[in-house]
Amino acid sequence: MKTAAVLAIGNELLSGKTRDSNMHYLAGELRRLGVALRLSLFVRDEEEEIVEALHYARRKADLVLTTGGVGPTHDDVTLSAVARAFGRPLVREPRLVDAIREYYGERVNPEVLRMAEVPEGAELLQPAPFFVPVFRVENVYCFPGVPEACRLLFDAWKEVLRQSPFHSLRCELDVEEGDLAPLLQRLQAEFPALELGSYPRFGDQAPYRVLVTVEGKDRPLVDRAGAALIDQLRSCFGDDALLRVVHPDTP
Amino acid sequence: MKTAAVLAIGNELLSGKTRDSNMHYLAGELRRLGVALRLSLFVRDEEEEIVEALHYARRKADLVLTTGGVGPTHDDVTLSAVARAFGRPLVREPRLVDAIREYYGERVNPEVLRMAEVPEGAELLQPAPFFVPVFRVENVYCFPGVPEACRLLFDAWKEVLRQSPFHSLRCELDVEEGDLAPLLQRLQAEFPALELGSYPRFGDQAPYRVLVTVEGKDRPLVDRAGAALIDQLRSCFGDDALLRVVHPDTP
Repeated sequence: MKTAAVLAIGNELLSGKTRDSNMHYLAGELRRLGVALRLSLFVRDEEEEIVEALHYARRKADLVLTTGGVGPTHDDVTLSAVARAFGRPLVREPRLVDAIREYYGERVNPEVLRMAEVPEGAELLQPAPFFVPVFRVENVYCFPGVPEACRLLFDAWKEVLRQSPFHSLRCELDVEEGDLAPLLQRLQAEFPALELGSYPRFGDQAPYRVLVTVEGKDRPLVDRAGAALIDQLRSCFGDDALLRVVHPDTP
Repeated sequence: MKTAAVLAIGNELLSGKTRDSNMHYLAGELRRLGVALRLSLFVRDEEEEIVEALHYARRKADLVLTTGGVGPTHDDVTLSAVARAFGRPLVREPRLVDAIREYYGERVNPEVLRMAEVPEGAELLQPAPFFVPVFRVENVYCFPGVPEACRLLFDAWKEVLRQSPFHSLRCELDVEEGDLAPLLQRLQAEFPALELGSYPRFGDQAPYRVLVTVEGKDRPLVDRAGAALIDQLRSCFGDDALLRVVHPDTP
């Protein structure tokens, strides 16, 4: 099964100024593509931080998606960080130079041309006229940080990642999580290949007290575990405890 | 200057099911407390992943805040992961046992009592009657993952972290980021102690084309760099390019 890590680059994400949307978007898309997201990191616009995070993420997952740091300003250091992480020099990519010159015309300056300096051997991933570098080096895929651009370019490319789909079941329960724990413990032991999750909610406004999820790639197994869960919930807590059952991955 | 890292623990954050709110909340709060958030990690509910992420985060920051994985179910493994990261055994904390017994009464079971097994030497951080473990081991501070509980307990405790405040200036500009890059490059070189950020927006609905931020702890220096920025923006791009100037850290 293919696994991924997301590395979101940008001081603004860590200073509380900007709420992440790229990592959340990519997490959802990867999920729908059948790719398991193992890890996400948010790091500052600092070359050394990005290099170390790349090494960490690559150890943890088959592919790493980065967002941010590919623009023309002094705080855009993703290109040089990726080059350094792979021990490759930065080289000027003629197609990017052309795209930058076409976009900026007479206003071209040394800073905007820096966007054409990609790690040697990088494969460009973007549609032809796009002048911001979007590229792959080995198993690292770099996308822009501006959410609209990140989504557009990821969506245009993402189908190459597609794996067999995930299946899941959500049960919304009117049960205290602590009372449920022994049942879930047994069920997880009975279905070690599946992932059981338990998510309590608090407060008068909560639509349920616990959400239990069952997930995996083997549909019959998910269905079997789901049936066992519902059966055991009814026998332990009664019919009224089961507020709602949803199959979110079924179109 | 005190630095922090956030480690958000939970499969639901990586599967796209749940959008992070704890990391974003803590990032904003740390900022207002004058603490620089250097790094955030999102990891799965797996002991080994949490242990490695703890080591990574502790290398990067003075203190690490974790969220999630402190409940009673099989997927709550933060307590054992923190114990393992520090090479300490888990020991039963009598005050937590009492709180758990008081809350659950006759419904107490072995799984809920697991919440009382904290790493040896852990300092409890929560108000007395709260039965979910909130604790510190050395420079690692563990909070619950349920957002309402995380906020409540962090807010009740956070003042011990307070440092001198950050100051900042935001300029919303009707300028292309690439045209602005040389000016920002020069200004950053002139004020190396400050952090200059540049955040483009795209699309017809965008309220500006670039947001430029100037930030630091030295208020007079931030003011001086801000004045220089505004002055240079006006002389390069004209008065109309400067749409709005905000001082977001000034109450």
